[in-house]
Amino acid sequence: MTRNLTFGAGIWMFGQFIDRYATDAYGPPVSTLEAIDRAGSVGELMALDVNYPFTDPSITTAQVKEALGRNNLKAIAITPAIYSREFQSGSFTNPDPAIRKKTFELAKRAIEVAHDLDAKYVKFWPGQDGYDYPFQVDHAQIWDFAVGGIREVAEFSPETQFAIEYKTKEPRIHISFSTAARTLLGIQEMGVDNVGIVFDFGHSLFAKETPADAVQLVHKHGKLVSVEVNDNWREWDDDLAVGSIHIVETLEFLYALRRINWEAPILLDQFPFREDTANAALASIRTVRALDKLLDRLDLNALHAAHEKQDALAAQRLIQDLLIPN
Amino acid sequence: MTRNLTFGAGIWMFGQFIDRYATDAYGPPVSTLEAIDRAGSVGELMALDVNYPFTDPSITTAQVKEALGRNNLKAIAITPAIYSREFQSGSFTNPDPAIRKKTFELAKRAIEVAHDLDAKYVKFWPGQDGYDYPFQVDHAQIWDFAVGGIREVAEFSPETQFAIEYKTKEPRIHISFSTAARTLLGIQEMGVDNVGIVFDFGHSLFAKETPADAVQLVHKHGKLVSVEVNDNWREWDDDLAVGSIHIVETLEFLYALRRINWEAPILLDQFPFREDTANAALASIRTVRALDKLLDRLDLNALHAAHEKQDALAAQRLIQDLLIPN
Amino acid sequence: MTRNLTFGAGIWMFGQFIDRYATDAYGPPVSTLEAIDRAGSVGELMALDVNYPFTDPSITTAQVKEALGRNNLKAIAITPAIYSREFQSGSFTNPDPAIRKKTFELAKRAIEVAHDLDAKYVKFWPGQDGYDYPFQVDHAQIWDFAVGGIREVAEFSPETQFAIEYKTKEPRIHISFSTAARTLLGIQEMGVDNVGIVFDFGHSLFAKETPADAVQLVHKHGKLVSVEVNDNWREWDDDLAVGSIHIVETLEFLYALRRINWEAPILLDQFPFREDTANAALASIRTVRALDKLLDRLDLNALHAAHEKQDALAAQRLIQDLLIPN
Amino acid sequence: MTRNLTFGAGIWMFGQFIDRYATDAYGPPVSTLEAIDRAGSVGELMALDVNYPFTDPSITTAQVKEALGRNNLKAIAITPAIYSREFQSGSFTNPDPAIRKKTFELAKRAIEVAHDLDAKYVKFWPGQDGYDYPFQVDHAQIWDFAVGGIREVAEFSPETQFAIEYKTKEPRIHISFSTAARTLLGIQEMGVDNVGIVFDFGHSLFAKETPADAVQLVHKHGKLVSVEVNDNWREWDDDLAVGSIHIVETLEFLYALRRINWEAPILLDQFPFREDTANAALASIRTVRALDKLLDRLDLNALHAAHEKQDALAAQRLIQDLLIPN
Repeated sequence: MTRNLTFGAGIWMFGQFIDRYATDAYGPPVSTLEAIDRAGSVGELMALDVNYPFTDPSITTAQVKEALGRNNLKAIAITPAIYSREFQSGSFTNPDPAIRKKTFELAKRAIEVAHDLDAKYVKFWPGQDGYDYPFQVDHAQIWDFAVGGIREVAEFSPETQFAIEYKTKEPRIHISFSTAARTLLGIQEMGVDNVGIVFDFGHSLFAKETPADAVQLVHKHGKLVSVEVNDNWREWDDDLAVGSIHIVETLEFLYALRRINWEAPILLDQFPFREDTANAALASIRTVRALDKLLDRLDLNALHAAHEKQDALAAQRLIQDLLIPN
Repeated sequence: MTRNLTFGAGIWMFGQFIDRYATDAYGPPVSTLEAIDRAGSVGELMALDVNYPFTDPSITTAQVKEALGRNNLKAIAITPAIYSREFQSGSFTNPDPAIRKKTFELAKRAIEVAHDLDAKYVKFWPGQDGYDYPFQVDHAQIWDFAVGGIREVAEFSPETQFAIEYKTKEPRIHISFSTAARTLLGIQEMGVDNVGIVFDFGHSLFAKETPADAVQLVHKHGKLVSVEVNDNWREWDDDLAVGSIHIVETLEFLYALRRINWEAPILLDQFPFREDTANAALASIRTVRALDKLLDRLDLNALHAAHEKQDALAAQRLIQDLLIPN
Repeated sequence: MTRNLTFGAGIWMFGQFIDRYATDAYGPPVSTLEAIDRAGSVGELMALDVNYPFTDPSITTAQVKEALGRNNLKAIAITPAIYSREFQSGSFTNPDPAIRKKTFELAKRAIEVAHDLDAKYVKFWPGQDGYDYPFQVDHAQIWDFAVGGIREVAEFSPETQFAIEYKTKEPRIHISFSTAARTLLGIQEMGVDNVGIVFDFGHSLFAKETPADAVQLVHKHGKLVSVEVNDNWREWDDDLAVGSIHIVETLEFLYALRRINWEAPILLDQFPFREDTANAALASIRTVRALDKLLDRLDLNALHAAHEKQDALAAQRLIQDLLIPN
Repeated sequence: MTRNLTFGAGIWMFGQFIDRYATDAYGPPVSTLEAIDRAGSVGELMALDVNYPFTDPSITTAQVKEALGRNNLKAIAITPAIYSREFQSGSFTNPDPAIRKKTFELAKRAIEVAHDLDAKYVKFWPGQDGYDYPFQVDHAQIWDFAVGGIREVAEFSPETQFAIEYKTKEPRIHISFSTAARTLLGIQEMGVDNVGIVFDFGHSLFAKETPADAVQLVHKHGKLVSVEVNDNWREWDDDLAVGSIHIVETLEFLYALRRINWEAPILLDQFPFREDTANAALASIRTVRALDKLLDRLDLNALHAAHEKQDALAAQRLIQDLLIPN
């Protein structure tokens, strides 16, 4: 039976892209409200992960709500921007207690906005937390900061669902929450039950995990809060359109999602620097739908039989019969 | 129009596998003659790259010829084993002149065998040539050894076609002929016209090249002698069945071969440590044929139009329409 | 105050090396007893991690004990060879229940030998446990096998200390116990208290961890059983002499060991394919001692001050003042 | 005899840093003139690689000359910014002939500025030239664009020295001039004699080359125009301070520079996102000087003897005697 997949996206993919070389950016500035309209124009999205603060201090939560409404979008998550200039040397792990406090304050405001917009979770992507150089940090100390900082927020608002999006590096060269397993360990150390994981397919590839494996581990520990998709060349978080390179592993990942009956919207996390964003989003949605539909034709009994024997060639044959039938 | 692809294989994939942990090997010993019979049993192969010396000194070239004949196989190449114990510290780049001479002598015998078996080329895979540690070698000197050693053989037998199979590492941690471009440079330095390249798809992935790109560069320089296929996870020469992981890049590679009208047999280079070898070979052949057949349906005009604009999404759409039609 | 470091080694580094190309091996066969004598000849080792079964079924534990004694060596660990031909498709995760049972039986015999030789721990290095291809396995199932298999042994012999040596790949392309964090998670799932971790510096580099960070995480969870050292180029388990490449990270690792007052012997795990083994061992020991001695001169107050600020340049300056004083 | 090393830097390291997450940048804007003053404040620099266009259209070449002069700096190179928004889809390889023409026009203006400032070379760093997706481009075509575009400029101004700084990726995921060998091949194809290579130590590490090896190859082909230094973790162009991680390989690289009697200024190419730039520059200079001074004490006869035998342990011992004398 075909699944009725639904989709969302990170609002950032409809914003302005910049990098350290094209410092004049890959396009003009885009406000939070414009980005929502752009997301709406895709026509296939129903949910957005919204960054806070909004691009302009004058934009109100009410305006955002209105913009979401007119585009038939819901805010599925609020992601505080704990990686901007102020947090360049860390948010939760910043050596300066004043910045750690600012992180907490920004998290509190994000919780409020999440409440106002009825978002399902507040996402932490602590991309500046970690280190760049050997000997730079006391590893035990910054791990305690990373774990303790999020615990503090989680305990402050026990009714809010939080989620950590792990990533092995960028912008920090070594990020504290780097892999699924390490993040699960950290969540256990927190001793709270309202912190989980946003599983980004590309971050998993980048961390040299097998996404289908890592996502089942997160699920087994009861910590899967949301799922983001894209693709990359496995050596950087390229944020390309889904299935551009890792078709087989994307298919295995979608199979893993089926097995755990994942029904929440699947979020796109792309950075189409040089492509039209709406088309890039549509390409990914089309690919995910098409791959998922292939799974309707997968002979599950045969796959289970292959798995019982861990028979690589038999399993591969089933998959190739779907993708490249002879 | 469908191409009539033909296939060959490296004889080693029908032999005994061993590694540094399963030192009792992954199966029983296999003689050169038995390996030829195994290759014949696949039923889809027409050519073999045959290692010399044969597994047992008592095996004669006549016996090998007979075994090839009864299996309807031809020796497409002879590959001298310049990477066994004797050559552990290098063949052409060995610091000991006596071993460099032995390399030359072994190459001479390989030329004779190639002549006796009517093989198209003698392949050098100098997997022990290079270095393991920083500061271990005088880089200029071993490059001269690597280039000069093969030049000497090529000049000794100008009527023989030679080919270098480059690889970035293993068993040497840094192999002198590491990438397509570096090997082309080395061949230029040789100043001979009977040395080319055996292009191994997996080695190209492992070298962080894009195979479709690297193979056109080799072809452009007029140095493409043979093509080997397999797949890997891009971080090691895993020698898996074709298309297990990199379906899109394999398709792009087959497209590149079409563009240059490559008609020689495509050789399998797999190490199915834990699988049945004949089935592993058949799986790869089936995949290559199926992928190549997909190319019959590729809208070339549309692809050329996408290439004119370097339009990633348009090109990807054409490919995904082949692999995962909606 | 200078620490009085002691050293041990894996017995395998004194054995015969082989790989998939030099199938005639890098040297002649070496029996368990000969390997012990070779280890003894280094003169600086006090402990060995001994593989079981011994190289020859006729060698008795009593003989091994005698050989250790005459060389002033102790068996610090027994490592059952759960990665040889019989276990090529897995030990604890093998799809065949009969092989899983054989793994258990071999583990039992290893426990007995460990008892007879008064070894501190039984090490599991499940290098064949995992998968090679996408879709090959039911990831949840093999994780359960991996965790459950070791739990069963640990519960069978609660008075024995066990330790898992994690590694990201080789010989399996994806090994179940791949990283420090994932192995810690698995140990938690086991729910036993006699399983810990053997931390291999090179495996940590290979897993893209920072060893000084990962080892503190293992220690924090109370699971550090033993430490092995070597070096590599970070993309394979090259098992080179200590400090050949990663001097700074080795120094940081030794600093981490000081901080947790690690006093057990430091074990060498090298594969000097092309070098004299005793010299390779001595080189590593000399380097570890010299680096550790440098730490006597490290200004700890200044380092703590740098760590308080996470000041990369200040920390680096302290380190460079040790290694390359101006 | 101690060498009298001199230093320069890329002007960009004194500018404003930004990345795709900290879109409000890591610090305030810095004009070309201010950046020159900052470079001057380091006190140890004598040369700058200056980007063109300048940060503000109102800044004149005369003003730049004056700023350089008051800081005792020379413009060693002019680097046109062929990677900004306008060139986001490529400069020399852009699919749009109008942009390719703009690239040529910008190159022409860079030549003029280079002439006005008496710079030694015009550097091309075509970081947007290449592709992001499989099947995106006709590889043969963009290689022709890459080669032909620079040839055209070189032929336009035969009296100007040009240099290509290769890099494997970023911002393009696959950059056409990716490695030393490939760039040498491209230069040969150009058939001009005024194009060489700027060798960036970090780019070489990132390309999985051994810098000491790659630089000798470039030199052997007579194409070494300039040298830039920094460090990284080998998986990204981190642009860290020299010697932070790869002390041994940096030492081997400096040894390679001595062997070819390299006497031009060594240029720093760092992105100290979170550190004080002047201090980061001074740290690198101090490290380069200290490492180079160590080479005065290197026993060259012993090293040559080790190289004759390719004796890794002997060579390593010589190096470790310099860095961590026992």
